[in-house]
Amino acid sequence: MSLMKAARYYGPKDIRIEQIPIPVPKSGQVLIKVSIVVPFCGSDLHAYLATTPKWPTIDKPDPITGETLPTTLGHEFSGTIVELGPGIDANNWHVGQNVVVEPIYSCMKDTCRPCSSGSRNTCPLVNCYGIGGWGGGLSEYIAIDIKVVYKLPDGVPLEVGACVEPLSVAWHAVKRGGFTKGQTALILGAGPIGLFILKVLRAIDPTSTIIVSEPASIRREQALKHGATIAVNPKETSTRDTVLGATGDGVDVAFDAAGVQATIDAAVFSVRPKGKVVSVAIWETGHNASLNLSYIAVREIELIGVICYENDHPEVLAAIAAGKITNLEDLITRKIGLDDVVEKGFHTLINDKDSVVKIIVHP
Amino acid sequence: MSLMKAARYYGPKDIRIEQIPIPVPKSGQVLIKVSIVVPFCGSDLHAYLATTPKWPTIDKPDPITGETLPTTLGHEFSGTIVELGPGIDANNWHVGQNVVVEPIYSCMKDTCRPCSSGSRNTCPLVNCYGIGGWGGGLSEYIAIDIKVVYKLPDGVPLEVGACVEPLSVAWHAVKRGGFTKGQTALILGAGPIGLFILKVLRAIDPTSTIIVSEPASIRREQALKHGATIAVNPKETSTRDTVLGATGDGVDVAFDAAGVQATIDAAVFSVRPKGKVVSVAIWETGHNASLNLSYIAVREIELIGVICYENDHPEVLAAIAAGKITNLEDLITRKIGLDDVVEKGFHTLINDKDSVVKIIVHP
Repeated sequence: MSLMKAARYYGPKDIRIEQIPIPVPKSGQVLIKVSIVVPFCGSDLHAYLATTPKWPTIDKPDPITGETLPTTLGHEFSGTIVELGPGIDANNWHVGQNVVVEPIYSCMKDTCRPCSSGSRNTCPLVNCYGIGGWGGGLSEYIAIDIKVVYKLPDGVPLEVGACVEPLSVAWHAVKRGGFTKGQTALILGAGPIGLFILKVLRAIDPTSTIIVSEPASIRREQALKHGATIAVNPKETSTRDTVLGATGDGVDVAFDAAGVQATIDAAVFSVRPKGKVVSVAIWETGHNASLNLSYIAVREIELIGVICYENDHPEVLAAIAAGKITNLEDLITRKIGLDDVVEKGFHTLINDKDSVVKIIVHP
Repeated sequence: MSLMKAARYYGPKDIRIEQIPIPVPKSGQVLIKVSIVVPFCGSDLHAYLATTPKWPTIDKPDPITGETLPTTLGHEFSGTIVELGPGIDANNWHVGQNVVVEPIYSCMKDTCRPCSSGSRNTCPLVNCYGIGGWGGGLSEYIAIDIKVVYKLPDGVPLEVGACVEPLSVAWHAVKRGGFTKGQTALILGAGPIGLFILKVLRAIDPTSTIIVSEPASIRREQALKHGATIAVNPKETSTRDTVLGATGDGVDVAFDAAGVQATIDAAVFSVRPKGKVVSVAIWETGHNASLNLSYIAVREIELIGVICYENDHPEVLAAIAAGKITNLEDLITRKIGLDDVVEKGFHTLINDKDSVVKIIVHP
């Protein structure tokens, strides 16, 4: 049995680089050699620091994958098909095809309204490949259901492909917020998701007023580089005052990509009457937001929760292929190997997060 | 100069029945003899108990009416035109016409996005006739701009007409919540607005599952009488459990018509994935809601603020004329005269609110 390296999650602050068997693709699966992983989405960081009720433990299996810990981390990745499993249409797929995946799974029961209506991101049992099981991107190979695999368009680098998953989160958030050409927007937090939201907004309107609020200077610089009209430091200047100065009565849509009280407040108090607040962050467990619902009522604000994506990958890939979303490579600030995932990856992001925008791993 | 009786608001807990001049209709106005007033909407009660920043005081005039206290209370009323002011089209309006009004005013400036887009309910300066000035319904007569006057359809009693304003609040909330035939709903609080929401939902779907949660037994009885499928007492039974038992995965839309932590919680935790929570209550000043935004995110819930109405009166009047909203008289549980407004009106509602659903006044 051939072995491969994988970053295995045993629990909070316990990630081990181990040798595990290379998986064999089952019926309906392909084997992908992972090229690039963006290993540290917010949920991966949460996993590194603490467990959440949604994830499997060493004795409580995930209800869909049936797996207990350890699992292989990583769900934002691109790679190349190296083997077609039984039942894969060889006219449509071939070895050597570069691909990305939409790495969520759900119950897919007929009785589940989200799954039966195409919104499996809100299935009560939805979870991510990687932390939830069925293999992860932080390994050399993954065998995965062809239904979640998408072809990377010709000419699009694998590094860009690894950004498609978080870009789909951003794409979905922007769609849910109803942002259209000619509208104005505010983004709270210029971490990866905030910056990807900026990229998507700019794909829709290259010139409208988009304000980014972010305390870290390197992230504000990135925001300006990627098209923000204004990047405000909320530690020094009021986000709301900046927004009102630039727009008169507030932005059409505000995206809270940080998920703390100060950012949800800035979002709510910076949208125009009938404006929309899109909450795209997962809050720390046990922390609720304090919201002035009378203010939300008298301005008829809509607060819209979003999670992951809903078949957004094809649209994102089409937008990339059409040249509407470019310079994604610039958002990757450090490249590391799989062996360095813990020391140079998680620890850097936790202890020195303002200096790094997005790290990628080459397994 | 002829005089009339009016309930004048001097400040919290200071309402005086006084004789004031009968107003003379100006250009574009009609003089209405008030027949029926539903005097105690939530905002009137707030006014009786405490002032709010939005209302005029004895030395701070309302920015639109220019009036300071005292003002004449009451904005939910019906009456009969007794005089046409200059410039009123006599082909369209006549003395003896029964009418209702949409009693809000706003800045109407071209630079105000809400006013220039037909959503004056979210104008930053919007306020109600009555507490804000320009006369109120708790008086014998009111001279009012014809633009906010609507004809009561033939055969519709004036008592029903006095319910059109709160019904328009309910109508607007239901529209904002996107409720359609075949959907399920939860109403938190069966006070007047909650019951009117029930009436509007039943006008759209006479048979779908509509659950009302309300601690007061008389209000639960009213809810059942007016079409609720289930009326749950949240002091004894979990609203969420009741909803899940009746619907499987939650209602399509929840209306919080009470505005306290327990009701907004019940709303959020009782809607299905991608469900909508409509917040139609004004919260006590200084009280924020604590919301689990992670839960709202993973279920992609939408929280929708609503205030007043946006040209909803014609649709409500048409629905009443078409017989889709009936038995409104049943919601009126006590009739009093203008002299009794304080003792039998406000005091009853405050001290004995569970025993009374809606009081009306005959000035």
